[in-house]
Amino acid sequence: MEPGSTLTNLRVCVVGAGKMGADHIERLSRRIVGAEVAVVVDADLSRAKKAAEWAPSAVAESNIGPALDREDVGAVVIATPGFLHKEMLLQVLERRLPILCEKPLTPDAASSWEIVEAEQRLEKRHIQVGFMRRFDAEYQCLRKLIASGELGELLMLHCSHRNPEAPKEFTNEMLINDSVVHEFDVIRYVTGEEINSVQVRLGRASRHAPAGQHDPQHVLIETEGGVLADVEIFVNAQFGYQVATQAVFEKGIVNIGEDGGPYFRSAGRWGGEVTPSFIERFRSAYDSEVQSWVDAAKQGEIGGPTAWDGYVTAACCEAGVAAQKSGEKVKVSLKAKPGIYC
Amino acid sequence: MEPGSTLTNLRVCVVGAGKMGADHIERLSRRIVGAEVAVVVDADLSRAKKAAEWAPSAVAESNIGPALDREDVGAVVIATPGFLHKEMLLQVLERRLPILCEKPLTPDAASSWEIVEAEQRLEKRHIQVGFMRRFDAEYQCLRKLIASGELGELLMLHCSHRNPEAPKEFTNEMLINDSVVHEFDVIRYVTGEEINSVQVRLGRASRHAPAGQHDPQHVLIETEGGVLADVEIFVNAQFGYQVATQAVFEKGIVNIGEDGGPYFRSAGRWGGEVTPSFIERFRSAYDSEVQSWVDAAKQGEIGGPTAWDGYVTAACCEAGVAAQKSGEKVKVSLKAKPGIYC
Amino acid sequence: MEPGSTLTNLRVCVVGAGKMGADHIERLSRRIVGAEVAVVVDADLSRAKKAAEWAPSAVAESNIGPALDREDVGAVVIATPGFLHKEMLLQVLERRLPILCEKPLTPDAASSWEIVEAEQRLEKRHIQVGFMRRFDAEYQCLRKLIASGELGELLMLHCSHRNPEAPKEFTNEMLINDSVVHEFDVIRYVTGEEINSVQVRLGRASRHAPAGQHDPQHVLIETEGGVLADVEIFVNAQFGYQVATQAVFEKGIVNIGEDGGPYFRSAGRWGGEVTPSFIERFRSAYDSEVQSWVDAAKQGEIGGPTAWDGYVTAACCEAGVAAQKSGEKVKVSLKAKPGIYC
Amino acid sequence: MEPGSTLTNLRVCVVGAGKMGADHIERLSRRIVGAEVAVVVDADLSRAKKAAEWAPSAVAESNIGPALDREDVGAVVIATPGFLHKEMLLQVLERRLPILCEKPLTPDAASSWEIVEAEQRLEKRHIQVGFMRRFDAEYQCLRKLIASGELGELLMLHCSHRNPEAPKEFTNEMLINDSVVHEFDVIRYVTGEEINSVQVRLGRASRHAPAGQHDPQHVLIETEGGVLADVEIFVNAQFGYQVATQAVFEKGIVNIGEDGGPYFRSAGRWGGEVTPSFIERFRSAYDSEVQSWVDAAKQGEIGGPTAWDGYVTAACCEAGVAAQKSGEKVKVSLKAKPGIYC
Repeated sequence: MEPGSTLTNLRVCVVGAGKMGADHIERLSRRIVGAEVAVVVDADLSRAKKAAEWAPSAVAESNIGPALDREDVGAVVIATPGFLHKEMLLQVLERRLPILCEKPLTPDAASSWEIVEAEQRLEKRHIQVGFMRRFDAEYQCLRKLIASGELGELLMLHCSHRNPEAPKEFTNEMLINDSVVHEFDVIRYVTGEEINSVQVRLGRASRHAPAGQHDPQHVLIETEGGVLADVEIFVNAQFGYQVATQAVFEKGIVNIGEDGGPYFRSAGRWGGEVTPSFIERFRSAYDSEVQSWVDAAKQGEIGGPTAWDGYVTAACCEAGVAAQKSGEKVKVSLKAKPGIYC
Repeated sequence: MEPGSTLTNLRVCVVGAGKMGADHIERLSRRIVGAEVAVVVDADLSRAKKAAEWAPSAVAESNIGPALDREDVGAVVIATPGFLHKEMLLQVLERRLPILCEKPLTPDAASSWEIVEAEQRLEKRHIQVGFMRRFDAEYQCLRKLIASGELGELLMLHCSHRNPEAPKEFTNEMLINDSVVHEFDVIRYVTGEEINSVQVRLGRASRHAPAGQHDPQHVLIETEGGVLADVEIFVNAQFGYQVATQAVFEKGIVNIGEDGGPYFRSAGRWGGEVTPSFIERFRSAYDSEVQSWVDAAKQGEIGGPTAWDGYVTAACCEAGVAAQKSGEKVKVSLKAKPGIYC
Repeated sequence: MEPGSTLTNLRVCVVGAGKMGADHIERLSRRIVGAEVAVVVDADLSRAKKAAEWAPSAVAESNIGPALDREDVGAVVIATPGFLHKEMLLQVLERRLPILCEKPLTPDAASSWEIVEAEQRLEKRHIQVGFMRRFDAEYQCLRKLIASGELGELLMLHCSHRNPEAPKEFTNEMLINDSVVHEFDVIRYVTGEEINSVQVRLGRASRHAPAGQHDPQHVLIETEGGVLADVEIFVNAQFGYQVATQAVFEKGIVNIGEDGGPYFRSAGRWGGEVTPSFIERFRSAYDSEVQSWVDAAKQGEIGGPTAWDGYVTAACCEAGVAAQKSGEKVKVSLKAKPGIYC
Repeated sequence: MEPGSTLTNLRVCVVGAGKMGADHIERLSRRIVGAEVAVVVDADLSRAKKAAEWAPSAVAESNIGPALDREDVGAVVIATPGFLHKEMLLQVLERRLPILCEKPLTPDAASSWEIVEAEQRLEKRHIQVGFMRRFDAEYQCLRKLIASGELGELLMLHCSHRNPEAPKEFTNEMLINDSVVHEFDVIRYVTGEEINSVQVRLGRASRHAPAGQHDPQHVLIETEGGVLADVEIFVNAQFGYQVATQAVFEKGIVNIGEDGGPYFRSAGRWGGEVTPSFIERFRSAYDSEVQSWVDAAKQGEIGGPTAWDGYVTAACCEAGVAAQKSGEKVKVSLKAKPGIYC
């Protein structure tokens, strides 16, 4: 924001008042400068009303139609389950409002491509997809370092994504679609390269994983430029939360996502506390993501990850799930990138 | 802030448009929710005008009088040089507005005590002093740890306060008054105890210190409860910025202020970047300090360090400067704590 | 060694006076208690003589025959190039002397199996193979931790093996046979499981690798119990030397091989010195390996990695080289383990 | 040791078969090359006999006289309580044998000075005092770094010396004489400067300290060149063992004595194991000290800390104990350094 920007707050319609939606409502009301929540939409109207209490001037609706008809609504956050995204996105695109759509853009590559085409017809980007890791200072630093060539070319990326535990209903497909999807995005983000192929290794599974979850898994990824990435995805890791990457360059190694904070020596041990969850790890990335979106929206712009990024990661996830089933290396095939994303 | 708090922004008068003042204006305009700058006051009107550009609806004044007469001003930030604080504080106290006063409260214990008395006459706290370290997550964690007794009693504190370099005009007195003052405050904050005495050791000085600065110095502090603290103050330390504390408990040792961030292995070295300055180290503490003050001010309250804290640290600084000159242990003597601070 | 063990030194014949052999001669003469070098054998007699200077009472020979005829020789260290090992081993086995044979046992699985059979015919182990990592305190600690079950079952191992630079004549096969061979051994050592399969991924290569070296490579290994291991082998990594493993358990993560030593803050950086080479990293493991071999040999015993371990790693290396060429997962097939190794 | 050094072992008489003496006997027998124990002397003959079992060819004596009469004894280790050192040293000096004398040289400066004079009369150094920290790789590295001037001049040293717990009979004087004595020595060693003064601060004491021990204490030391050192001595620190130093240079900060080893993430914590005791921390320093003494003794030389160092630290300890009692800064006064120590 430059000196002199307007005082008028961006009035935001938040669709979906579940955990993520409520979180965005609280964020927009308490930590984001220059925005406020105008409407909260949820099929469950009482849930919408409850979530709207955080936002001093917000009204609740059970349907997106009336919300979009309001003159004061200047932007939309979509935080419903993914299978509802496509219809919502098409409706909001018609109104040509800036959108922050939680990931996934849509649950599969084909429907994501429809969104890409619809946006392309408007000849302007309206959608930012909620890949908030791009707003994390350490990933940004890694991206800059790769681009700078300071340590030579990037050769490999060793990623780990560890959650203390996953819900029982988490399936093997969700391991890819909900967790590894972030790694697909950041690998693309830090390298600036598309992903060519995915392979998945299944070995000994943790006894702490609920039935039906083969956990951990080892995902092998190759970019178009030949960078070899591998992701350990482990969603019942018990010890705490950790999202870390080790980047191997021609002339050095860089780790991000290391634990920090107060350092103890007690009871025969040195060290500190492991980050307990993604909330502590990525809180400021979420804030920074939404602030950045609000600032751009007020200027009529969209920055951040695009619908194209949403489409590509959907294609990667499809390849990932297929690889999980076959054990083979699966190629990721993409349509040509439309002009507005170039 | 609870759900449903009012939308109306707190309109703030910022007095002093130098480095610190301009920083607060930008912060209030861009990162603090629920506040906006109404007036910028600086004897140098053009400087006031320039700083006011960050704040969309702010006007500039060269004098605090007209600013305080404005109906819409609901709170005041004082960011002028310390020797001007006393008069300003008395004027604003008359208007009974909430104040955030950058440290020092005033330059000496006697004048600080006058402020304490003036505030005490109002029978309510109006002043928060800008000891922003209390809003740093690691100091807060240390304070909680001490209070919890989890590692037994606190016995010692080893503090270091290292700047890459100090301005030429920095004097030995300023070493105490501008730098060690923060350590006085946090020692009091984390222990919950007053400081009894100060001693200063001068040894070999760095050749990188400008003439007239004996740097580093070793400051020995004792609390009323017998905690031994020592502070290495080193303002021309060249290598980078570091503010760190090691707390020695009966059953363990805790370090705060350790470096973190991306971890490199390159050119025969492992490690990362040292924090370059207090800006990176304490940026979020400043934001959190001001947000907390704004939130409280909107409820008619003052939290955070008080005028009493300002007075006590002024007394500690006086003892510190005397100790610097004599080489002896100097007792800190304090008047009785007035009721509104209890 | 128990109190009261005999004073008589074990008199050792060292075959091969190249870098490794000379190193063992110096070690046996200066740092190993209870042993001394009796003969140094090298086809290049002047090299043998030169190396023998470290050992006060040693004679030099150009041929192993006369050396083995000496009455005083009680044990043999073989440190010649691998392709000469088979004949030497068979000769020494005939004399039934304890042998410390530098890795590889022999250059391929078939010839290693011949040694295994020859030793099996003697109905007693005589050969220890030079996998010195088993004598490194951190690998020993990891092995104990896995066996203890303290952190649940071991699920994955992420290994990295980085050298600052490799000789020009280093081939892709040598990457497996000379470097990854150590990882094969320690994976077997810490897990207590055999290796089932090997796959190799080739991606972008470092421009610092000499022609003909595709470096780094990513080696995927699976144990019979389903542990997924992966090894980044990178022999032109420039920044320094690093051999590290991250073990993923059901309830925690353990890293070994982290850098330590003096910790600097200077010139805007925190950290320390990367280990420059395998010498600093594994010096004490070498000493401990040889001391352990000497102590056992004096009791007529052999501890440490066996000829069977030499045979198995040779089979793993063969699979690794095949995998390198095909890009496919290659199964490791082993003969049944002879009784003396059980 | 150069190539070609003699095979004949140095035959050592160890006086004192308590904990330290037995430790040296085991070391000389098992880990030190080129030496063996010839006689073990202890007033308690059965204790001497028991300790002598570690040494294959050793005999036991209850008196030093007959031991020194033995033709084969080439060197003496003194490991009795300090108050017996003076008489022993004088007796052995008469025999002109190389001596490794455990610290303290003698219990006070006056008697240490007598030893210095006796040795000076022999016109050659015969005594090495057991300040084993000088053989620790990190202290050696720090000493080199200071001498190099690479980070500018050394300005301050922050030392901590923490034991898990002290025996009940440990007195305040022993805190200085048995623990801080090592810090006196290493401060002299790394700086190459004598100590000018000592002051001791007593604050809140740990409730885990036995009656009569005021623990921890904060010892302030100044070298002749103006380096300010401070030592936290804390012998009931519960959490584990730690001997660490932070050196403050004009251009950087260096820490030695940091914990290392395997790095865990488990149960919400990251970190590793604190060194449990001085044995793990300094084992290799002890070995290296004794090996170095043996190597020199076989050449008729003495390296390492001298009787002069023993005398000076005794003077520092006397000043330290006086400072402990008075709370004041106490000057250390030394006689002129005799020629054989220059």
